[in-house]
Amino acid sequence: MKALHEKIRKEGKVLSHTILKVDSFLNHQIDAKFMLKVGEEFAKRFEDEKITKVITIETSGIAPAMGTAASLGVPLVFAKKSKSSNMDQDVYSTQVKSFTRGTVYDIKIAKEFIDPEDRILVIDDFLAFGHALLGLKKIINESGAEFIGAGIVIEKGFQGGGESVRKAGIRVESLAIIEAMKEDCIIFCEK
Amino acid sequence: MKALHEKIRKEGKVLSHTILKVDSFLNHQIDAKFMLKVGEEFAKRFEDEKITKVITIETSGIAPAMGTAASLGVPLVFAKKSKSSNMDQDVYSTQVKSFTRGTVYDIKIAKEFIDPEDRILVIDDFLAFGHALLGLKKIINESGAEFIGAGIVIEKGFQGGGESVRKAGIRVESLAIIEAMKEDCIIFCEK
Repeated sequence: MKALHEKIRKEGKVLSHTILKVDSFLNHQIDAKFMLKVGEEFAKRFEDEKITKVITIETSGIAPAMGTAASLGVPLVFAKKSKSSNMDQDVYSTQVKSFTRGTVYDIKIAKEFIDPEDRILVIDDFLAFGHALLGLKKIINESGAEFIGAGIVIEKGFQGGGESVRKAGIRVESLAIIEAMKEDCIIFCEK
Repeated sequence: MKALHEKIRKEGKVLSHTILKVDSFLNHQIDAKFMLKVGEEFAKRFEDEKITKVITIETSGIAPAMGTAASLGVPLVFAKKSKSSNMDQDVYSTQVKSFTRGTVYDIKIAKEFIDPEDRILVIDDFLAFGHALLGLKKIINESGAEFIGAGIVIEKGFQGGGESVRKAGIRVESLAIIEAMKEDCIIFCEK
């Protein structure tokens, strides 16, 4: 998505070879109108898939996921993060390793909000090592619903998550794929 | 907002005299299209105020705040919650007492995302005792920006937050004000 590439080039801050900060439009300040456009793009890419629900993980996935859900006209469910293990029988939960924080956290979704008939599109802000997506895959499989695909705003191609997730049979659509980052240079994988 | 009253009556679950669960469209599952309408309503109520920025607190405030920011055509900034006190000089931070969890947490916003010239509209999902709004007021005052008003999806009128916040000089627009809750009955304060 060209407009996204431009935005990353203009506003993104490369903090290290692995960390890109896009706090000005995605992770702290949010460009709401742009997120609606991001959502339209995801909706277009999955328009033939009869998606019935969008799922994301709090917090930064919510804005692009909301744009997508609004565009598709389906509900959005966000998985909640919690530090403690949850034994509640009314929720699906699994553990996810965080790349940025080096910690493990639980994600959970109330069972009532995933129907076995659902055709699910997962939306997230970043794809790095793929742990969040694989965690959601586990939850979706457990529910009996179908995991149709994942829409990612920024994929860090050099961290291998995209490969693992695609190998696990998940269709991944990333609006920007970053091949490498240097101090003042972001190299995109462009089609 | 009549459509919101209907949605609360139809989907809200009264867990006690003080706790209303609206997980099906606001706090866990999100009705994305409806949140865009909620945002349009807030934008309409503050249309003459030349708002330049919408601020909310993660997580549940993000959806209605995004609808509002998209409708007004301004950026949205969400305050981040953290358990530990943050001494970072680049952020505004303050402590907020949580009604639902009985804990105290820090909220913080990077200084770069509030301009002293900003005219700020705060959006939140619930108004109970008003601690979150008063915390944001402190941050906004410190930044030098102007706190124009607050848009609340559901105000729990019986918990007094609305009164405290209005007494502190903040214009509050609530789309639904609940006077009292009983097992199978939610009493709205309707105009």
